[in-house]
Amino acid sequence: MVRPLDPPERMLLGPGPSDVSPAVLQAMARPTIGHLDPAFLQLMDELRGMLRQLFGTRNELTLPMSGTGSAGMEACLVNLVEPGDRVVVGVSGVFGGRMAEVARRAGAEVEEVQTPWGRAIDPDDLRVGGHAKLLCVVHAETSTGVLQDLAPLRAVADELGALLVVDAVTSLGGLPVELDAHGVDAAYSGTQKCLSCPPGLAPLSFSVRAQEVLKARRSPVQSWYLDLSLIGKYWGAERAYHHTAPINPIYGLHEALRQVLDEGLEARFERHRRNARALRAGLEAMGLELPVPAAERLDPLTLVSIPDGVDDGRVRRALLDEWGLEIGGGLGAFKGKAWRIGLMGASSTRRHVTTCLAALADVLGRGGHPLAGDPLAAASAQY
Amino acid sequence: MVRPLDPPERMLLGPGPSDVSPAVLQAMARPTIGHLDPAFLQLMDELRGMLRQLFGTRNELTLPMSGTGSAGMEACLVNLVEPGDRVVVGVSGVFGGRMAEVARRAGAEVEEVQTPWGRAIDPDDLRVGGHAKLLCVVHAETSTGVLQDLAPLRAVADELGALLVVDAVTSLGGLPVELDAHGVDAAYSGTQKCLSCPPGLAPLSFSVRAQEVLKARRSPVQSWYLDLSLIGKYWGAERAYHHTAPINPIYGLHEALRQVLDEGLEARFERHRRNARALRAGLEAMGLELPVPAAERLDPLTLVSIPDGVDDGRVRRALLDEWGLEIGGGLGAFKGKAWRIGLMGASSTRRHVTTCLAALADVLGRGGHPLAGDPLAAASAQY
Repeated sequence: MVRPLDPPERMLLGPGPSDVSPAVLQAMARPTIGHLDPAFLQLMDELRGMLRQLFGTRNELTLPMSGTGSAGMEACLVNLVEPGDRVVVGVSGVFGGRMAEVARRAGAEVEEVQTPWGRAIDPDDLRVGGHAKLLCVVHAETSTGVLQDLAPLRAVADELGALLVVDAVTSLGGLPVELDAHGVDAAYSGTQKCLSCPPGLAPLSFSVRAQEVLKARRSPVQSWYLDLSLIGKYWGAERAYHHTAPINPIYGLHEALRQVLDEGLEARFERHRRNARALRAGLEAMGLELPVPAAERLDPLTLVSIPDGVDDGRVRRALLDEWGLEIGGGLGAFKGKAWRIGLMGASSTRRHVTTCLAALADVLGRGGHPLAGDPLAAASAQY
Repeated sequence: MVRPLDPPERMLLGPGPSDVSPAVLQAMARPTIGHLDPAFLQLMDELRGMLRQLFGTRNELTLPMSGTGSAGMEACLVNLVEPGDRVVVGVSGVFGGRMAEVARRAGAEVEEVQTPWGRAIDPDDLRVGGHAKLLCVVHAETSTGVLQDLAPLRAVADELGALLVVDAVTSLGGLPVELDAHGVDAAYSGTQKCLSCPPGLAPLSFSVRAQEVLKARRSPVQSWYLDLSLIGKYWGAERAYHHTAPINPIYGLHEALRQVLDEGLEARFERHRRNARALRAGLEAMGLELPVPAAERLDPLTLVSIPDGVDDGRVRRALLDEWGLEIGGGLGAFKGKAWRIGLMGASSTRRHVTTCLAALADVLGRGGHPLAGDPLAAASAQY
């Protein structure tokens, strides 16, 4: 007989999931009700209103998809791509590469604009070839900790005659997204990053223009499960059954969004900025290098080089086993070469920063890596 | 400011979600840990072992997909279908029709074998045309409350040279599924029916033969999110990151499976049988008609005709508002003509049966529908 689960106590400082507040966990544990219950329909409407505030949009078609962030990515692409469509994708990490792969599987002719991992993409590089159906970029590249400025991209998309599609998985709720101000046509996110909600849902938003492209399709959306022309009728006025909505995860997201708006978006972004500054100061005081140029760094996720001679796996295992602290390993070009430290949502606190620096100093120090200075003092100076 | 959610008390007797036990809800509320945490990897292994017991299979590739039951359906079809493949689908309700639609969107040449709604499909009718890649049937048709006997289907699939694909959404955990005994190659289910877990995950199992078909594909799986050749590497020995697993919903499923096995499969099936018998006896005592022939009825879901002159919406609204009791409306051919009463998992109890009969007698009686007999006495006689 399998024993009841008993998850260990962790402090989640990886690239997601982040720590989830007790109120969100308790919201998920409220009794399940039906997906067509009038009380649930009201909760759906409230949730959509809150999501619009976070996304900075008035888009009617704003809702959480019933899957993780990658399902949100796939939903944006399969609803907008038809076979043979030209799609330009900026790729400087895992998630840009994933967008390209998903678009190819939807039948697109994909042009990848490659930039070295750990750097933002120069918007001018995205002005490639003639007309494109979509221009796809990652706002916050979770594999590298790089921020892509959205401001110049609408003009590039207009030159290409393209819809602008944005991955906001690691940005939503941690830094300004502002879909309408930046002329973004389709965006998706995940719940387990700066929203501090368990993974399982993918907030998504489509502009009126993107909805028109969806309506004008000549071929059916290849995915029935992710078909927004059907899902929009359940979340919209028709309330037409499509699939059974994930009731309790939606409870959790409802509470997580409430907490974000209760804190206030500006206060929340400032909290993420302040804690990221302190973490970086502490890491640099230890003599660790941050490969991403200062102007391109993400507040919710910091990339830090693993010093020569330090065993990646041993350090992360010691942090987990001895300190209950999870940080992320590197991906792709940074595999074994860098760690990813997340300060997202409920994990972006002075307590998390301090514990992380103390634990890392302890484990590295015991591993024989000399510390250049006092990381805790350097971090404290930022508060 | 949006107020905290406060879902009303319900007794869920619709076609799913069913009532969820407090232990499962509390499991979902345990602190989130990382998707590569050793403690989570162990929990995944335990969960897969329990799923295999419920499915009656030794299939290595048995896991929960990160989406609802419909995502499980789509996963089975898009992993096994390549453009131009011939697929035979038995259709006698919404979910058979959905399988056909999903297969068409994956590029299949679909042959639908239609049978009147409310009846099981004659296996001989499925012997159509020459070779087919897949033979798809619904074990428990949630839209009609009909059971499809799986026993004769392997022989039919062999004649077609086809893999046998089964929708077990409303059967898993409520009646015997026994994939290996019936030679099923691919099956999927949902968590919110007889497992009594909140909706959001789709248990799935592929036979060795289905895995070989997947490996031998000439074209990539059109869905990256549902690509089992990638997902199998995360749930298998490689532990290769694909997407962030829905941690807390998986906690809930782990506990729900534990409860099923703790009760014992045979005892659980017998409980579903007994309560279904009592419900049917009570409904018939009230003079209500059950359109499905006795030999083809599902224990977890009973279809009952709405008497002439009775207002469907008024009755269901009164049950919900005055009794906190949800039953399901009809779908497709039965829209406005029948109700669907679910007795699934934690909702399959004598208390649920009795309350449902009492509530229905009250609401129908006040609506002027004469009762033919004493439904509660008729139900009690079955215990």
